[in-house]
Amino acid sequence: MTARLIDGTAVARRVREEVGRGVEALVAAGGVAPGLATVLIGDDPASEVYVRNKRRLSVGAGMRDLHRHLPADADQATVAALVDELATDPAVSGILLQLPLPAHLDSDALISRIPAAKDVDGLTTANAGLLAQGRPGLRPCTPAGVMALLDEYEVPLSGAEAVVVGRSVLVGKPMAQLLLARNATVTVCHSRTRDLAEVCRRADVLVVAAGIPGLVGGDAVRPGATVIDVGIHRGEDGLRGDVDAAAVAEVAGALTPVPGGVGPMTIAMLLANTLTAARVQQGVGV
Amino acid sequence: MTARLIDGTAVARRVREEVGRGVEALVAAGGVAPGLATVLIGDDPASEVYVRNKRRLSVGAGMRDLHRHLPADADQATVAALVDELATDPAVSGILLQLPLPAHLDSDALISRIPAAKDVDGLTTANAGLLAQGRPGLRPCTPAGVMALLDEYEVPLSGAEAVVVGRSVLVGKPMAQLLLARNATVTVCHSRTRDLAEVCRRADVLVVAAGIPGLVGGDAVRPGATVIDVGIHRGEDGLRGDVDAAAVAEVAGALTPVPGGVGPMTIAMLLANTLTAARVQQGVGV
Repeated sequence: MTARLIDGTAVARRVREEVGRGVEALVAAGGVAPGLATVLIGDDPASEVYVRNKRRLSVGAGMRDLHRHLPADADQATVAALVDELATDPAVSGILLQLPLPAHLDSDALISRIPAAKDVDGLTTANAGLLAQGRPGLRPCTPAGVMALLDEYEVPLSGAEAVVVGRSVLVGKPMAQLLLARNATVTVCHSRTRDLAEVCRRADVLVVAAGIPGLVGGDAVRPGATVIDVGIHRGEDGLRGDVDAAAVAEVAGALTPVPGGVGPMTIAMLLANTLTAARVQQGVGV
Repeated sequence: MTARLIDGTAVARRVREEVGRGVEALVAAGGVAPGLATVLIGDDPASEVYVRNKRRLSVGAGMRDLHRHLPADADQATVAALVDELATDPAVSGILLQLPLPAHLDSDALISRIPAAKDVDGLTTANAGLLAQGRPGLRPCTPAGVMALLDEYEVPLSGAEAVVVGRSVLVGKPMAQLLLARNATVTVCHSRTRDLAEVCRRADVLVVAAGIPGLVGGDAVRPGATVIDVGIHRGEDGLRGDVDAAAVAEVAGALTPVPGGVGPMTIAMLLANTLTAARVQQGVGV
């Protein structure tokens, strides 16, 4: 093994601590503590765990927990009314609609009701447009977390070749925009890419968010490259990512483990977004 | 010279004729002819020429010319009030604010007043977000015109390596999104790219929108590649593009000339967007 392991757990902790200090500073400057409204519809066990972690860590950073829970059979109008209520409530800095929603609900229609200024998941079309045009806005948490890891480990980005595998609205596409904004030469690959390994081997920075376990092997990595594995899959031997970690660790210069790499960053960036949203809404410390 | 020349003038004419037939069909289906509100502030000679062409060709396609002209010293509030008036006027299908505006005006603030549904230039943050998320919307005219040329010449895109040189909000970034949506493997290059020629040589489809005359030479083109030159510069010997056309024509498989390549497509796609906007607003033929 040659790759340095990128410790997302430690970086996420530092980000959360920094957010906690930012919350204190906001209150000290005459503002009020940010309020995070997590919205859970139904009782999906995985979603319950995610929401519980988000609530716990936001409270740990000094935020107000404004959690709301609706039954699994809540209809579209009921959930829409709840989102609208949170949208206008000045105590609510950020709205997090925990996905996936029950199948009878129209997720897109509900997300579109979240005001851009409270869209702490960075999911709305409005925030996607702000990112695409290089304007200030709330960025999707997972790619923002990847940027924070790259910065913490001082990975050079300007002029670097960055390759993103995957083009989802949640990760791949905003990831490419964020890397481009930092002056990387950015390539986006996907299922139709002719020779994925060849394209990936060009990368100084390789971000894999394909949702396919072990898709990227050691032959797809340039020696010394920084490899960020966004995938997370539960298998027989525990959690694994989109990267064949054992093989890639022999070639890469640095690698995020799964778990303990990108995963912990997502909630940390959610808290950072919630603080940013509160600052902008309150006009304090912006 | 080996490259086939891509005849933008002819393709643009066909697109305009198709739009004209679409306008006839819209009216025949009970709708009304689309109305294009070109807005010119001041008397810049180049802007006057552009606006005149847009008006003439929109009328040629059967649209209503709802041109508005304000003096060069019109203040922000006056222009904003005009945009707001056009935004609510049901006769106005599309609003085209001719850029650049006089320096004392805040262009971004004025563009943001254009409703996404009437933003026939595809400039608003809302339409950028729709494009980034792969949702229906009005696309910026120049990159949309490039896609129309590639389609007209049946250039394979799925799985192809596409390289875009330039990352402007108007051309480079939406161009990359449009190529990605068609399943190309897309790389975006810019001024910080380490070895521009090397990256460009990977391209099956090379789109150059850098704004630098003759930036891309023959050494930057893979034999047989399709090269799209978005640049247009007035020099001592007439118009030229971002590509060294003489050298690239010896290597490329196909090339857009300057003038007569991408240029004529921009207005054609403006007309296509205006027809689309009218159809959606009128709920006819969508």
